[in-house]
Amino acid sequence: MDARSANGAGTLPRKYFTSPKIFAAELRDILRKRWIYAGHVSHFEKPGSYLLYQVGQDNILILRDEENGIRAFHNVCRHRGTQLCEQSEGQLDGRIQCPYHGWTFGLNGSLLGAPNMRDCAGFDPNRYPLISVAVHVWNGLIFLNFSERAGSFEQAFAPISDRVARWQIFDLKSVRQITYEVQANWKLVFQNYSECYHCPKVHPALSKLTPYRASLNYLREGPFLGGPMQILGESMTMDGRSCAATLPYIEKEDQRLVYYYTIFPSIFLTLHPDYVMVHRCRPVSPDHTRITCEWLFHPEAITKPDFDPSSAIEFWDLTNRQDWHVCELSQRGISSSAYTPGPYSDLESLLAAFDREYLRAMHQTQREFALAD
Amino acid sequence: MDARSANGAGTLPRKYFTSPKIFAAELRDILRKRWIYAGHVSHFEKPGSYLLYQVGQDNILILRDEENGIRAFHNVCRHRGTQLCEQSEGQLDGRIQCPYHGWTFGLNGSLLGAPNMRDCAGFDPNRYPLISVAVHVWNGLIFLNFSERAGSFEQAFAPISDRVARWQIFDLKSVRQITYEVQANWKLVFQNYSECYHCPKVHPALSKLTPYRASLNYLREGPFLGGPMQILGESMTMDGRSCAATLPYIEKEDQRLVYYYTIFPSIFLTLHPDYVMVHRCRPVSPDHTRITCEWLFHPEAITKPDFDPSSAIEFWDLTNRQDWHVCELSQRGISSSAYTPGPYSDLESLLAAFDREYLRAMHQTQREFALAD
Amino acid sequence: MDARSANGAGTLPRKYFTSPKIFAAELRDILRKRWIYAGHVSHFEKPGSYLLYQVGQDNILILRDEENGIRAFHNVCRHRGTQLCEQSEGQLDGRIQCPYHGWTFGLNGSLLGAPNMRDCAGFDPNRYPLISVAVHVWNGLIFLNFSERAGSFEQAFAPISDRVARWQIFDLKSVRQITYEVQANWKLVFQNYSECYHCPKVHPALSKLTPYRASLNYLREGPFLGGPMQILGESMTMDGRSCAATLPYIEKEDQRLVYYYTIFPSIFLTLHPDYVMVHRCRPVSPDHTRITCEWLFHPEAITKPDFDPSSAIEFWDLTNRQDWHVCELSQRGISSSAYTPGPYSDLESLLAAFDREYLRAMHQTQREFALAD
Repeated sequence: MDARSANGAGTLPRKYFTSPKIFAAELRDILRKRWIYAGHVSHFEKPGSYLLYQVGQDNILILRDEENGIRAFHNVCRHRGTQLCEQSEGQLDGRIQCPYHGWTFGLNGSLLGAPNMRDCAGFDPNRYPLISVAVHVWNGLIFLNFSERAGSFEQAFAPISDRVARWQIFDLKSVRQITYEVQANWKLVFQNYSECYHCPKVHPALSKLTPYRASLNYLREGPFLGGPMQILGESMTMDGRSCAATLPYIEKEDQRLVYYYTIFPSIFLTLHPDYVMVHRCRPVSPDHTRITCEWLFHPEAITKPDFDPSSAIEFWDLTNRQDWHVCELSQRGISSSAYTPGPYSDLESLLAAFDREYLRAMHQTQREFALAD
Repeated sequence: MDARSANGAGTLPRKYFTSPKIFAAELRDILRKRWIYAGHVSHFEKPGSYLLYQVGQDNILILRDEENGIRAFHNVCRHRGTQLCEQSEGQLDGRIQCPYHGWTFGLNGSLLGAPNMRDCAGFDPNRYPLISVAVHVWNGLIFLNFSERAGSFEQAFAPISDRVARWQIFDLKSVRQITYEVQANWKLVFQNYSECYHCPKVHPALSKLTPYRASLNYLREGPFLGGPMQILGESMTMDGRSCAATLPYIEKEDQRLVYYYTIFPSIFLTLHPDYVMVHRCRPVSPDHTRITCEWLFHPEAITKPDFDPSSAIEFWDLTNRQDWHVCELSQRGISSSAYTPGPYSDLESLLAAFDREYLRAMHQTQREFALAD
Repeated sequence: MDARSANGAGTLPRKYFTSPKIFAAELRDILRKRWIYAGHVSHFEKPGSYLLYQVGQDNILILRDEENGIRAFHNVCRHRGTQLCEQSEGQLDGRIQCPYHGWTFGLNGSLLGAPNMRDCAGFDPNRYPLISVAVHVWNGLIFLNFSERAGSFEQAFAPISDRVARWQIFDLKSVRQITYEVQANWKLVFQNYSECYHCPKVHPALSKLTPYRASLNYLREGPFLGGPMQILGESMTMDGRSCAATLPYIEKEDQRLVYYYTIFPSIFLTLHPDYVMVHRCRPVSPDHTRITCEWLFHPEAITKPDFDPSSAIEFWDLTNRQDWHVCELSQRGISSSAYTPGPYSDLESLLAAFDREYLRAMHQTQREFALAD
């Protein structure tokens, strides 16, 4: 297969973008089986720091424990099911207490106290720890896995690990995050990120900085897709100039490149010479996706008195909004009875690869949806 | 079975709090078969006084008729199905007229006039009365029953009738009602009312007035559950002082007690020495309950120049809001895939009894929902 | 069958007004098979003028082409399904360009350009024209048909064509349109328009201008129903006086009449001596109908310096709002479990005829919904 050909592949049928049954299958067979991105470690400064993360009906409490590790638990009391923490982020004082009857759990999830339960015949506190979710921190990026058979993270991520190591993302700090509600299927958002064929029409500012055909795809099949594009200026910002020093381990050959990688099914990594941008992509319903975009800079840059990341933030916020708008137009058109799969151009070869990976992940459930158009 | 033990019982599985199918079965097999509370007679001052009451898709017109009785009809014209009365309460002038084509019904539901129908071959006005709903007024509280085989009210309510007689609720007047929209299943609201285990964490003000373990359960099984709790002050109010004279038939031994009774599936009675509070609980959807709280006082107290019920209203409005909040947190946690039934403490024995009564009422429909998690 | 008798017919069962399954069948078997009204030609002044029209999930782009014909296309790009035009009306400059990747179509729907597709093996632009929808312009009124076997428009409309010709609607211009969102089933809106039995209760102003029993039904069976009513004044306006000269081909015998015709399933024509009103009726969901009312006048009247159509617009806007309100009350009552079909009066004979036409159109799908109450 040629690296830059879609080989006659076309877009997916309508049902994959509109069917609630297929969406439910995606939650079950993709979101709950693959490693999904939940946030950067720089949000967890000290033991007890926590964030809440919603996946479908599940609310996850991610925290730094007493041993400085990152843990994740379902945010659900083992007594009567009450949600434990309410604020989307905060600081715990060494324990998690249910606001209803005061059951109290340690940062490792164990039940420390349950008022009035002592006298209840047969009650064993060891049977009621918080229910944990598998966590793996990779380059400072926290991934969760809901499956009981999660498999080896390192093995799964081997194809991309070496390619992003030199940005040392674990060292960076988040300086800003923006969450967008997009009225489009999550796969349309992935596909939008995976080609620059749309750049001339949709992104006039970006198109001045980066020629839309000047890209290479290093990763062309599987859950990791993408590669570099040429930058005509110094970085992707409003004026094309860097807004921080080049990151410490970036070599000269990367100083005029920006790398775009998607990690199926939840994250886009955009690696600039001077900063890293991360998109976290959360399916909410067949036609609604919540996307959080985060800008990460080196701590040394941040502490400089003249540090100003606004040119990078403004540039990508503008670009993001342009992208979500065309994704929403696609969602509307695809919902029409007249939509039929259309042909991918050779500039959209990664979209065909995304579709193949998606269909592999959904393979077990294909047969039951044969009629669910 | 011991009065204060949950005997190892635990909370219900998730489907009972989230499944639309089970909610539809509850409407059909509980709300439409049991006697449900709709309001206090003091709202119906004279013939023609009416209230509207919504149950599921049904809107019920409750009115005082020409013979001073209370009647209930479906608020639906027999001609083309138009809703007859629009305002949630009001005064009819001896007849009910459809706003569309002017069909007119008496306060006893009979069709009095139907313009232009005289000439229609075979039209018999006696065939088109309003469709009535069974009504029983008990202690001034109006109960409806949608079943064609409603059964004897007196027999059904025998276990509780003697216990509430001395408050003479039929004599009292409603001085205030507040309606709350709670984003939680109706059973969580019943369960919240049925224990004071949560009082120390949720109700700091209430806990000063009433020690959370100082309760007795006189009614421990079946559709009527509850009993008294000790009051450290004079009544349940902001400052713990009475806001009206003790009701005429309250004996000395009840002057430092508040009685809490639930009547399955629609009403909570809170009987204080000086006033009565009634909660009306209406399921709207699996995760939405509409609750109307009403404060009833003796007419002699109300006519006193210095009568001020605000201390009772403010106290319980605060307590209500605290309760609905933890109910909503429970609804959210129970909706999670991680929720599993948890153990009841001995202080939650009435919740186990409620669950048993609920499952008995749902028994006929259990089998068909075996797979509907 | 007598012209003015309902012959014992009664209203339809509840499921026809509330069931999502039946609504889906209506979209499939009625809205997508019959000719449906989409707008008046006076909105399309020159080549490139366009309007968008939503039917169910489908958005239709109606435009005047280079040869001055009216065409309709699904508003969906053949590349990746993106919606092409966003504004509800506007002017195209001779081509339709997709805002995502710039695929460009002519006003006849052919694909004129597709950037970067030239090199894609096997790509043939002739395979990707816009998907057209059948159009027929009748008396200046644009009708669409989604069926592949639309059948002859002239033959279908023969029963009504001669009856409306003398108003020369193709010559008129739209001076105002108002869109209403009505929380009622579309059939209730048709039925409301089809009788004046409700006029005395609902329309006090209209009832002064037109005696509610003074009507004749020229068309009494099939997709076209209606006939004239007497006007006591000159026209249907706030003061009963004409607000324009009598239309050129209106004979003396029509000068004190207003004609009311319904065309199943999408349009009402109200033909006055001096102007024409058109209601466009679009089902949105079982209990939601979008109605656009449009007032059409002769161009000579419009150009008069003292032309003022406000008395006609105000009169019917008031009447419309009164009608939608009782339709909404009917929807609410019919949704009740207590609703049962009621008897039509002889003044409602057209409603019985509408129901028969409706059930004929739904005939093929009756059996599968036998249980869908």
